[in-house]
Amino acid sequence: MARVNEHYLKLKAGYLFPEIGRRVRAFAEANPSAKVIRLGIGDVTRPLPPVVVKAFHEAVSELGDEKTFMGYGPEQGYDFLIHRLIEKAYAPLGVRLDPSEVFISDGSKCDTANILDIFSLENRVAIGDPVYPVYNDTNVMIGRSGPPDERGYYQGIVYLPCTEENGFFPGFPEEKVDIVYLCSPNNPTGMVANREQLKGWVDYALANDALLFYDAAYEAFITEPGYPHSIYEIDGAKRCAVEFRSFSKTAGFTGVRCAHTVVPKEVMAKTPSGEAVPLNRLWNRRQTTKFNGVSYPVQKAAAAVYTDEGWRQTKETIDYYMGNATVIREGLTAAGFTAYGGVNAPYIWLKTPGGLSSWSFFDKLLTECHVVGTPGSGFGPSGEGFFRLSAFGSRDNVTEAVERIRKKF
Amino acid sequence: MARVNEHYLKLKAGYLFPEIGRRVRAFAEANPSAKVIRLGIGDVTRPLPPVVVKAFHEAVSELGDEKTFMGYGPEQGYDFLIHRLIEKAYAPLGVRLDPSEVFISDGSKCDTANILDIFSLENRVAIGDPVYPVYNDTNVMIGRSGPPDERGYYQGIVYLPCTEENGFFPGFPEEKVDIVYLCSPNNPTGMVANREQLKGWVDYALANDALLFYDAAYEAFITEPGYPHSIYEIDGAKRCAVEFRSFSKTAGFTGVRCAHTVVPKEVMAKTPSGEAVPLNRLWNRRQTTKFNGVSYPVQKAAAAVYTDEGWRQTKETIDYYMGNATVIREGLTAAGFTAYGGVNAPYIWLKTPGGLSSWSFFDKLLTECHVVGTPGSGFGPSGEGFFRLSAFGSRDNVTEAVERIRKKF
Repeated sequence: MARVNEHYLKLKAGYLFPEIGRRVRAFAEANPSAKVIRLGIGDVTRPLPPVVVKAFHEAVSELGDEKTFMGYGPEQGYDFLIHRLIEKAYAPLGVRLDPSEVFISDGSKCDTANILDIFSLENRVAIGDPVYPVYNDTNVMIGRSGPPDERGYYQGIVYLPCTEENGFFPGFPEEKVDIVYLCSPNNPTGMVANREQLKGWVDYALANDALLFYDAAYEAFITEPGYPHSIYEIDGAKRCAVEFRSFSKTAGFTGVRCAHTVVPKEVMAKTPSGEAVPLNRLWNRRQTTKFNGVSYPVQKAAAAVYTDEGWRQTKETIDYYMGNATVIREGLTAAGFTAYGGVNAPYIWLKTPGGLSSWSFFDKLLTECHVVGTPGSGFGPSGEGFFRLSAFGSRDNVTEAVERIRKKF
Repeated sequence: MARVNEHYLKLKAGYLFPEIGRRVRAFAEANPSAKVIRLGIGDVTRPLPPVVVKAFHEAVSELGDEKTFMGYGPEQGYDFLIHRLIEKAYAPLGVRLDPSEVFISDGSKCDTANILDIFSLENRVAIGDPVYPVYNDTNVMIGRSGPPDERGYYQGIVYLPCTEENGFFPGFPEEKVDIVYLCSPNNPTGMVANREQLKGWVDYALANDALLFYDAAYEAFITEPGYPHSIYEIDGAKRCAVEFRSFSKTAGFTGVRCAHTVVPKEVMAKTPSGEAVPLNRLWNRRQTTKFNGVSYPVQKAAAAVYTDEGWRQTKETIDYYMGNATVIREGLTAAGFTAYGGVNAPYIWLKTPGGLSSWSFFDKLLTECHVVGTPGSGFGPSGEGFFRLSAFGSRDNVTEAVERIRKKF
């Protein structure tokens, strides 16, 4: 009988969101009349911008016509989208990228998971705590860790606590690490890194020969000026950082699927004999061999996001969600809660009242207010006692959810 | 500095198709007036069927409307598509599947590559020779092999030659193997396995505790009755086989991206302590953690393929390509070539004339006839002296290509 990858068996039961789904379904089945408001999973709710829909339709029509039909596209993505991103999403930040440094994909979840393929298991990896669970779980699955301890920390992975005390921004590890995941604006805490904080990490990476995985999936939600939208705004980052971005939250593409990853040509990793190899070459090999590119109409739709009119419409939707974030943050703060985030990110990181555990608060909120959020402890041990609320949803629902919570607490 | 996955460095330069692209571009640049006909890469050329385009448009419109907008779908795919596949693509074959056994993805290339994630590196893997290069390269990349020998065989992988002598169908390995890749109708040879041949492999797998990876990406091109379209038509296969299928060639989806993989609940693999674990559970964990599902409009378009009218239109396109296959096979046979395949598959497997090597014949065909094909040796050492021509393309181009070849040889 074939043998399994036994590292999968180290994973604790249930990925966070399926477990939430299970509890919500059970509640909804037992209470069919309850109007459950979901502010749990970070899923968008507003329709695609009209300009994006139009481009999507046009590309679909092209595929229905012999004269304009397109088969396989480049695995790395079409030039029209790569050039658009370079020109509209990076150049205005003062960041110059070569087209060969940008790889279009079907999601940042896939990219942050798949990029592990090109690294040796011997690298030591540091991740935040709390953290987007995919960083942790994919490292466990690929075999970089031992079993978890009773807190949920997996042996061999370095966890960098993000707590009230350090402003939810990770400090440098005490031991030598090779790869560090950073996420800003942060999922789940909703906090954003400033220029000095990012410069600290880039300097750390260059001085300690470490590589940064920079997840900027929520950069479009930065509303305050002065915060970096790309790690490459920091000098030296092109020598030590890979950046992940997504259309999912930016433009309502969670069901459409498009993202991109930047692997600068200067970023190197080494062979067992110590020779430096460009990561760009390895990632290109990985993507051309194991991936077949993103759906052509999806890429056309994504390119439309970064037209002038497309961006105006996209920004309107982002502003709508950030209006929700304000309702949640201000409403709950006024009700006596301690709430973080929600200014430059669509997530509010709530301190649970009365020292409740995250899952107890989850169950209480679900059964008493019929509101679904995400238990902070699901993102790591340091998330215990916190709770993530997402600003995605209709204004009416968000307002009603806040009202229900205020009445109960 | 982070360390690379050094197994990537074992790969020989250039994945087959990029290398072909490079040579063709060089030729085209040096000979701008030459009208190059491409029968190399197996890419479709006919537009999407009208019913499919209609469904695609409708789903795009849904995403533009607040009332019908969809965000994240199930990572495993939408029920509407899974049920349609079970009912229209499997039930007519007498194959019953549970919805939880079908996983929708963005491509069979991805699935056949990604499924290696859930297995231990200790498994011994057998692949055909010649073979779709992704099976070989992804096993090398994940670390299952040593370096290649001078023929191109990687240490630790078991190669099963498919030659004129054995009718291009692999015989059983002499040593114990844990996983065997089978592809029927075959890429690149264009040959199809009959019921007895497949029964032989299923019986072998059950008797030898092996697992079959059955790639049926070209099943829709089987035109002769009596050949199995699914491995599950063979008794016992649900206990030992995973099946991969794709909309790419079936319905012109190479640029649209949709496929599916069947992992029956009965198929097991074992832990280091010998406990049996259902592969279905592991693959589900892999997909929910590392993948975020297929674009919603793409799944709607795919479902339309299997409506009555959609299938009629899809079948018309397949018949068109198979008409091309007949033109190539009969034309070249009449010109004195020895040609295999092209009856139940869109590929013709040509014996090179005069004992030419595959790449010599490639260069000769490109420079003298301006026709691009795929060197058989690119698919493995036993492909040396053969050449793959694909039936995708317009009838005019195919006819002209055959005419040019006839004139020169």
